[in-house]
Amino acid sequence: VQDKIKQLLTDIQSGNYKALARGITIVENEIEGYDQLLKGLPPTSSSRVVGLTGPPGAGKSTLVNALLRHWTSQNRRIAVIAVDPSSPFNYGALLGDRIRMSEFYNNENVFIRSLASRGALGGLTTKILEITDLIKAASFDYILVETVGVGQSEVEIAGLADCTVVALVPEAGDEVQTLKAGIMEIADVFVVNKADRDQAEALYRNLKTLVHEKAGGSGEILVVKTVATNDEGIPEMVRAIDGFFSTDHNVMSKKLNLLTEKSWQIIQAKKMRGLEKSRLRSEISAALSNGSFNLYTFVERFI
Amino acid sequence: VQDKIKQLLTDIQSGNYKALARGITIVENEIEGYDQLLKGLPPTSSSRVVGLTGPPGAGKSTLVNALLRHWTSQNRRIAVIAVDPSSPFNYGALLGDRIRMSEFYNNENVFIRSLASRGALGGLTTKILEITDLIKAASFDYILVETVGVGQSEVEIAGLADCTVVALVPEAGDEVQTLKAGIMEIADVFVVNKADRDQAEALYRNLKTLVHEKAGGSGEILVVKTVATNDEGIPEMVRAIDGFFSTDHNVMSKKLNLLTEKSWQIIQAKKMRGLEKSRLRSEISAALSNGSFNLYTFVERFI
Repeated sequence: VQDKIKQLLTDIQSGNYKALARGITIVENEIEGYDQLLKGLPPTSSSRVVGLTGPPGAGKSTLVNALLRHWTSQNRRIAVIAVDPSSPFNYGALLGDRIRMSEFYNNENVFIRSLASRGALGGLTTKILEITDLIKAASFDYILVETVGVGQSEVEIAGLADCTVVALVPEAGDEVQTLKAGIMEIADVFVVNKADRDQAEALYRNLKTLVHEKAGGSGEILVVKTVATNDEGIPEMVRAIDGFFSTDHNVMSKKLNLLTEKSWQIIQAKKMRGLEKSRLRSEISAALSNGSFNLYTFVERFI
Repeated sequence: VQDKIKQLLTDIQSGNYKALARGITIVENEIEGYDQLLKGLPPTSSSRVVGLTGPPGAGKSTLVNALLRHWTSQNRRIAVIAVDPSSPFNYGALLGDRIRMSEFYNNENVFIRSLASRGALGGLTTKILEITDLIKAASFDYILVETVGVGQSEVEIAGLADCTVVALVPEAGDEVQTLKAGIMEIADVFVVNKADRDQAEALYRNLKTLVHEKAGGSGEILVVKTVATNDEGIPEMVRAIDGFFSTDHNVMSKKLNLLTEKSWQIIQAKKMRGLEKSRLRSEISAALSNGSFNLYTFVERFI
């Protein structure tokens, strides 16, 4: 196994997609060699990991497509990880979106992988971290992690990218605006998509104000306008992303936070390894039949 | 401490709100007596825990207000836990929504508590479980857990209620519809709110079809229409909730799943206790300066 994994890692580093896909499967399913593969990853990578998140309807998939058109036209190599944390299924839920990306499925400079949670609460974030780290070993210029929704887990996942882009739309309504508090914390770049619509200018100005208030000592968060369906504003969006990476300050100050969150996630997942919900369930079932059940006394035996 | 906690629990059980608030603070901050308080909780409770979730803009706060009006007019006692998992702040983000609930802040039959994540990734769900269990010891007829958004963590939290109500609105658009896969798994009752709007009937019929397809052997999921701003449909919504609880089948089949998820969350939180992100951060910082850093080798020392 050891030699095979070494060879696999070499193949992944040389840009072999088949090897990369096999590596991802090993990590995803924790097949033999999984630990060795991750521990063998090189300490540095030139790939820029970009997280893209935002509420449903913000046109994230259209933005991904526009970015892919832009980057491929410049001969960039891009990996896309499309994450759907709210679906407990590994298929179907976002088929429509995924199909829209199909024009790039056969492009040799684009590698696409979809991931869903399979109902394993809490496990998805760790897997995405590990898979992203694996993909970083291959020589992509950009790794785009697209997540659906604006809940805590999406914020969590997107916030674990080197640079996080938050897409919003003018129609987003009042309640979405209130969500900005959570999103403000992770956004490095804001995109006002569907910028040809009414109220786009108002949303753009609100974001500018918000961003300015927050700036203080740290680097300014950029706000760009796009109409992804027409590729409008995409060069500006790419410039904002690249600008983020070219500012040493941003990348350096974020790196420690990122590594802290990542290691936290991984430690947590490892500590829970070996405990299965099915076993918990049957032990609870037995405990319930013995009369008075208290959850907090029950859990002691597993700690 | 031991006697004080016993007294506190007695006071909580007798319906003393001040004691309940103090108990929640003890659980929230893990103050001395925290374990004893939880382990002293009685094995059963007559409170019905109802989770309410749905996308931003579905009118969840308005639904909560309408339910409070309905229930208080019937002399029911209700506790509301308002959860904002996407906000890393403990204040502000949803102040607008919270203020709307203020007409009940002085009602002796209503107890309201807001909770936000304070940036502690993963910790919020456990705290909500513990606090809900504590509130169950007080004699409320209903405990309403309202969560904002439709990400995995909101689905997770709402899905940990005895009965989960998912609110949707006609305008929800295509992408929200794709989120239904995750939501279908946890919904016991669907509410089509703002049912006086265009397309309400179409959404209602779509949900009915979806629910019918899913039904199979298990109990039918109910779909009700409301216009919460006018209290329209609220009696029907309450009837659907009560109907869920009166069907032994539903409650019994869900109980084991619930307890399994709850114990999983609690075990995970306890296993991570004592490890602080600040410590992780400084150890990573030291390791980085020693040259080649590999995350997966680094985390070993904490497992």
